[in-house]
Amino acid sequence: MERDSHTTKTSGDVITCRAAVAWTTNAPLSVEEVTVDPPKACEVRVKIISSGICGTDNHILEGKMETPFPVILGHEGAGIVESIGQGVTTVKPGDKVLMFPLPECRECIYCLHPKGNFCKKQNILSPTGLMLDGTSRFTCRGKKIYHLQGTSTFTEYTVVDEIAVAKINDRAPMDTVCIISCEVSTGFGAVFNTAQVTPGSTCVVFGLGGIGSAIVMACKASGASRIIRVDTDEQKFPRARALGVTDCLNPKKLEKPVQKVVKEMTGVGVDFAFEAIGLIETMVSALKSCNRSSGVCVIMGVAPTGSQLSFDPVLLLPGRTLKSSVLGGYKTRDDIPKLVTDYVQKFNIEPLITHRLPFPEINEGFKLLREGKCIRCVLSMRP
Amino acid sequence: MERDSHTTKTSGDVITCRAAVAWTTNAPLSVEEVTVDPPKACEVRVKIISSGICGTDNHILEGKMETPFPVILGHEGAGIVESIGQGVTTVKPGDKVLMFPLPECRECIYCLHPKGNFCKKQNILSPTGLMLDGTSRFTCRGKKIYHLQGTSTFTEYTVVDEIAVAKINDRAPMDTVCIISCEVSTGFGAVFNTAQVTPGSTCVVFGLGGIGSAIVMACKASGASRIIRVDTDEQKFPRARALGVTDCLNPKKLEKPVQKVVKEMTGVGVDFAFEAIGLIETMVSALKSCNRSSGVCVIMGVAPTGSQLSFDPVLLLPGRTLKSSVLGGYKTRDDIPKLVTDYVQKFNIEPLITHRLPFPEINEGFKLLREGKCIRCVLSMRP
Ligand SMILES: NC(=O)c1ccc[n+]([C@@H]2O[C@H](COP(=O)([O-])OP(=O)(O)OC[C@H]3O[C@@H](n4cnc5c(N)ncnc54)[C@H](O)[C@@H]3O)[C@@H](O)[C@H]2O)c1
Ligand SMILES: NC(=O)c1ccc[n+]([C@@H]2O[C@H](COP(=O)([O-])OP(=O)(O)OC[C@H]3O[C@@H](n4cnc5c(N)ncnc54)[C@H](O)[C@@H]3O)[C@@H](O)[C@H]2O)c1
Ligand SMILES: [Zn+2]
Ligand SMILES: [Zn+2]
Ligand SMILES: [Zn+2]
Ligand SMILES: [Zn+2]
Repeated sequence: MERDSHTTKTSGDVITCRAAVAWTTNAPLSVEEVTVDPPKACEVRVKIISSGICGTDNHILEGKMETPFPVILGHEGAGIVESIGQGVTTVKPGDKVLMFPLPECRECIYCLHPKGNFCKKQNILSPTGLMLDGTSRFTCRGKKIYHLQGTSTFTEYTVVDEIAVAKINDRAPMDTVCIISCEVSTGFGAVFNTAQVTPGSTCVVFGLGGIGSAIVMACKASGASRIIRVDTDEQKFPRARALGVTDCLNPKKLEKPVQKVVKEMTGVGVDFAFEAIGLIETMVSALKSCNRSSGVCVIMGVAPTGSQLSFDPVLLLPGRTLKSSVLGGYKTRDDIPKLVTDYVQKFNIEPLITHRLPFPEINEGFKLLREGKCIRCVLSMRP
Repeated sequence: MERDSHTTKTSGDVITCRAAVAWTTNAPLSVEEVTVDPPKACEVRVKIISSGICGTDNHILEGKMETPFPVILGHEGAGIVESIGQGVTTVKPGDKVLMFPLPECRECIYCLHPKGNFCKKQNILSPTGLMLDGTSRFTCRGKKIYHLQGTSTFTEYTVVDEIAVAKINDRAPMDTVCIISCEVSTGFGAVFNTAQVTPGSTCVVFGLGGIGSAIVMACKASGASRIIRVDTDEQKFPRARALGVTDCLNPKKLEKPVQKVVKEMTGVGVDFAFEAIGLIETMVSALKSCNRSSGVCVIMGVAPTGSQLSFDPVLLLPGRTLKSSVLGGYKTRDDIPKLVTDYVQKFNIEPLITHRLPFPEINEGFKLLREGKCIRCVLSMRP
């Protein structure tokens, strides 16, 4: 009740609420009281309704991707605008919104380019963990807490820059649409934008987690004739089959490198290979798995900071293409709200959420992810 | 005269003629008498009229790309069919033809695929140096001499498999069109097929040799607004400017890495980067030179056998694409004869040939290439 009353407070007030603070890497998150400053100019304070736990959050918690600590993780959130700072015009209090780990400023040279979605104002490469003005809105036990990729959704309230938030369809079910801000956009965009999977084509997907599952769904929607999935965790095979996967491979149980098996199964390698794990080794396997003359390999997994991808360039010579994208290449504020409406009207994304937990049980959610028990676990911040 | 009379000999006869034999790597070629066996079934014997010296021939001679020795190099040849083996239907004696280092069998899974051009019957990766039937047609001083990539054009007569030769436009000038079988198709295809350069775009080309020059020509034809070229050899800058290059950079004279300079010049990196040298280092520079959100990097250079291309995959993450192709992705027998007709009707490719030498002066031609004096040197086999 106390928390709920905050929602009605206008800009200018500090909100005290619960958030999951990551004080250091490789330790459980600590759910405790934080203060959330009011939004400054061009900022939006959002009451989070739901937030998915993405592999990226786990990578960061395991210290594989650099970002300043202590931090409030989470970048896959849906919520309702609580208050807005001066000059905000694109959302207003009460709007249903999604927040994005990649902003779209609509002004920079990347945003103005018809292709690509990588906004100059991003906070992913060399992250500062701060708002655009160089400060933080979170305090806990007297300490400044960093933001994650301009989002930070493992909290009851967050503040985001206006360029990282967009109003979505009024009919969107708020307990589910959070996954559209990362899992679904990343997976669907990998297929529809980055790879452009064609009807009748063959595909292989490395990794049966959230991103890999969204990729499979989109491959099927694109009319792929065969979808092979590769994962070391066989618990995930039945669910993968239900999504439309035709063949499941566990590289640990194969006598040959998995790319050889994929090549034998398809005669010549697949038309489209996707990596959704984040390991150099599986990136190279994915590249080798695709048709050398025309195959497209899309790397969606994010390797640990400072990794080196190494391969003989002769792998590319006969005609392979290697690409990647953030959030599937969607211009986030322009395109992702359309995905929400598509979902409301036709797509069924429910199978991508396998677990739901109340927010305070967030560490259990991370455990499910690490143990391979879930595809996506969504946290609910409803009181 | 004696040589000329050979042209009239019908299939079944061995021809004795001059060829440039590479007995070992890193030694001058030896122009001497060889015997050229008659074409077997599905083979074609061709009287070579002209042949260009490509950077690939030089790489091989320098031992950077594996192929069996002793060998007759050359893969960029134009000629006239002298005789045909049993079953040959697509060319007949007297036809003007080009030979290709990449065949098109029109039967394999790659050839039947609408995209890509990498025929299964190629002899580029793990080359045997032999005809499709596993034997050689060349003998010199009693020794079997290997073929190069199913072509071998540094000889007055050669034998090629029917799948590696195509009839071309009757009006094609035979002293010039040889370069369409590699230099022009590689460079034009890199731009038109592999990168798909768009009007108004910015481009950078690493390497001002034959391939790089053909790439510039095609970028200009595609309406690129800016074409930056990078080469350590400043002798080549005036010619590059004449082809339409807007800026020339010598990385040795820059105080920063060349990719930084390209980024500063364009604000954000180029839309399309091409590597036409064959060095790992310049491949990585090319990748870094292109717009991280939407840039396409096309590697046309061939690195020494066994090289490893290494980079942080985060370079790709924001949206870069890395690709490559052999002979610009053209299905060789289907598409390259059309390029010849285009040339006869509209394109001017003469600026791509800077030197012409009589065949016996072939070592001088390699010297010109190595010393950076020529873009392409074409050898004439006319007596
Ligand atoms: N490019 C983007 O915009 C973007 C967005 C979100 C996530 N990501 C990245 O995508 C990757 C996957 O994220 P997720 O949320 O699906 O994570 P996840 O943990 O749900 O899925 C990873 C899967 O990989 C499997 N796996 C682990 N090691 C393996 C191996 N050696 N061989 C085969 N399978 C193996 C696991 O069993 C698991 O099923 C992460 O690297 C994440 O950082 C990228
Ligand atoms: N992909 C294909 O189908 C295909 C076809 C033909 C040739 N190739 C390859 O393309 C490459 C170029 O061939 P080419 O015939 O144009 O050769 P070339 O020798 O004419 O051109 C190479 C150019 O690179 C320059 N160069 C060398 N080192 C450099 C450096 N460190 N920095 C900047 N410039 C440097 C040289 O000065 C020269 O101008 C070779 O690797 C060749 O094997 C590929
Ligand atoms: Zn994510
Ligand atoms: Zn922007
Ligand atoms: Zn060549
Ligand atoms: Zn073929």
